[in-house]
Amino acid sequence: MTQLVISYQLLSSDPQGLADAIRVEQSIEFPNELAEDWIQKDVVGQIVNMGATVNGITHVEIAYNPDNTGYELPQLLNVLWGNVSILPGVRITAVDFPESILSKFRGPRFGVEGLRKMFDAPTRPLASTALKPMGSSSKQYAQMAYEIARAGFDTIKDDHSLSNQPWSLWRERVELISEAVRKANAETGGKCVYAPSLNLPSDQIALAALEAKALGAGALLILPGISGFDVMRSLAEDDQIGLPIMGHPALLGSFVTSREQGISHGVLFGQLMRIAGADIGIFPNFGGRFSFSKSECTEIAEAARSELSHLKPIWLSPAGGMTLDRISEMVDFYGRDTASLIGGALHRGDLYENSLAMVQKMKSLA
Amino acid sequence: MTQLVISYQLLSSDPQGLADAIRVEQSIEFPNELAEDWIQKDVVGQIVNMGATVNGITHVEIAYNPDNTGYELPQLLNVLWGNVSILPGVRITAVDFPESILSKFRGPRFGVEGLRKMFDAPTRPLASTALKPMGSSSKQYAQMAYEIARAGFDTIKDDHSLSNQPWSLWRERVELISEAVRKANAETGGKCVYAPSLNLPSDQIALAALEAKALGAGALLILPGISGFDVMRSLAEDDQIGLPIMGHPALLGSFVTSREQGISHGVLFGQLMRIAGADIGIFPNFGGRFSFSKSECTEIAEAARSELSHLKPIWLSPAGGMTLDRISEMVDFYGRDTASLIGGALHRGDLYENSLAMVQKMKSLA
Repeated sequence: MTQLVISYQLLSSDPQGLADAIRVEQSIEFPNELAEDWIQKDVVGQIVNMGATVNGITHVEIAYNPDNTGYELPQLLNVLWGNVSILPGVRITAVDFPESILSKFRGPRFGVEGLRKMFDAPTRPLASTALKPMGSSSKQYAQMAYEIARAGFDTIKDDHSLSNQPWSLWRERVELISEAVRKANAETGGKCVYAPSLNLPSDQIALAALEAKALGAGALLILPGISGFDVMRSLAEDDQIGLPIMGHPALLGSFVTSREQGISHGVLFGQLMRIAGADIGIFPNFGGRFSFSKSECTEIAEAARSELSHLKPIWLSPAGGMTLDRISEMVDFYGRDTASLIGGALHRGDLYENSLAMVQKMKSLA
Repeated sequence: MTQLVISYQLLSSDPQGLADAIRVEQSIEFPNELAEDWIQKDVVGQIVNMGATVNGITHVEIAYNPDNTGYELPQLLNVLWGNVSILPGVRITAVDFPESILSKFRGPRFGVEGLRKMFDAPTRPLASTALKPMGSSSKQYAQMAYEIARAGFDTIKDDHSLSNQPWSLWRERVELISEAVRKANAETGGKCVYAPSLNLPSDQIALAALEAKALGAGALLILPGISGFDVMRSLAEDDQIGLPIMGHPALLGSFVTSREQGISHGVLFGQLMRIAGADIGIFPNFGGRFSFSKSECTEIAEAARSELSHLKPIWLSPAGGMTLDRISEMVDFYGRDTASLIGGALHRGDLYENSLAMVQKMKSLA
């Protein structure tokens, strides 16, 4: 396959008309008949498959010239979902990326195997958490991080909402937490890493990533729905940074929650997170505070792990109101390449004891 | 008003439960009862108004401590729509931004009045277009731009899909088109500006903005849905750049197209575009290729122009399949502070003659 093939689900009484609109809108955005013949043939998308209409729904595949993407992620996103995002009744169900596009992206630097080595965890799932609640001081977060790291967690991230609130400014927080995790690791011989959030002003992110590394952070949390997927890519591909990247779903819900419109869970939280370089993809697990179904979560898992040229498979981090007693179920469902994220529940009772129980649970599932 | 007050429309059989979930999710994201008392009171959002449930819909207002935003745009977006984007049945209908937040943003550098001076257009609407179709060479775009500028257009932008396709690489395109527009202006005494698209890799955007300016570009086209709203803000606030900014709706459709979920048209295309520094906000006009209704467009117009602290009102640029014969209707509807964007339709017949007709139409509406 040499073309970029996008599969759409159309909810329309005129699927042929809508498919024709999409293939033009997502390429030349110009009256087709006014374009030169070769442009109509080589630049405008071509319908390569159109299914029967069942209950008002039609599946169609449109092939685009990969040159249209300029082989850069921002324009690739634009070809996928730029203006068609404004057309109701269109949903991307699958994307086949040609090698010519995938070869331009480094993808996850570590992926599943890389982090297994980093955490000396050849087979077990990873234990992850987030520092909460907002309003705590940097010292309080550092104390929490110390207890959690001492218990043997693999990753501790900032809550995705921590930025530069007056109670805990970014630089102070990163410094104190990095120091606390380093101290715990020194005491236990552990390999816990702290991932500060980089949900910062765009003109500060690249420098903040280097500063975080210099202060001792061992990973980075990125919110691609806010910062942009290409910011995650550029940080992931930067050899000077070279840290594992965790991708967070903030703001991305609007692309997936409607059944009639948007981008499929697998394409967004699996393929795009991976192309943009996340080593760990965070998404709301089924049965938590959010709305994803089991089949949507399965779709994410498959897209995060199935073959995608040279791009490494990535860790799944199902989250959102998870509790210790659901760990076994999660690992049964997603397998052991899972970085289970337990947040608030660790704080019901003693933080260190709960963290220890979580770590032991992970070890028992190796 | 000192709090950040967000109005939501909830589609839920348990609006109280959902409102409680939102106020916690969008602040501490932590079991409320485990948080210190002062955090429950001062950091967690507070329900300040809850309407009756009518046809399953409930309107609720939640007030957040503006400190939660850190007074930075990425975290402001996160408070507005971060995790709640994953909850179905929630839509933001209005936002009251306190002065403490608005005072941190410069907003549009030019706005309506600034561009009226720049284009020597004290009362008339502006004539805008986009260079199309993809597949053309940089020389062809430059020739088009020359004709359109010679006819007296105010702004000529790259089609939002032009990036670094092999038929027209970014730097060459910006150089040739800038030169063509300069030549036309020199011949006519006109003030036409060219706005190249900056839908480029994130680590190249800031430098590309300066390079575009050095090459002669007079404005910049940003796609905040792809690049991130805060990238637009940082370019708009940069005195070294100092060019007018056009904001494009690519990818943003998913936030508005569902009636049940997302962010209102006015908040997204009016308030947020303005806070992020767009001087010209492009959006799909009603009755074109897209789906916005008249009332949704009115909402955008009101949000773009109503008082918002020191932030200047901005130009409306209704677009998406517009034709010359709809200009009068658009100006009747939106008023004269409208930068009508006509794209493909200019190419039906003679480009120069059509462009001239458009310019004359704009002058007649002064």
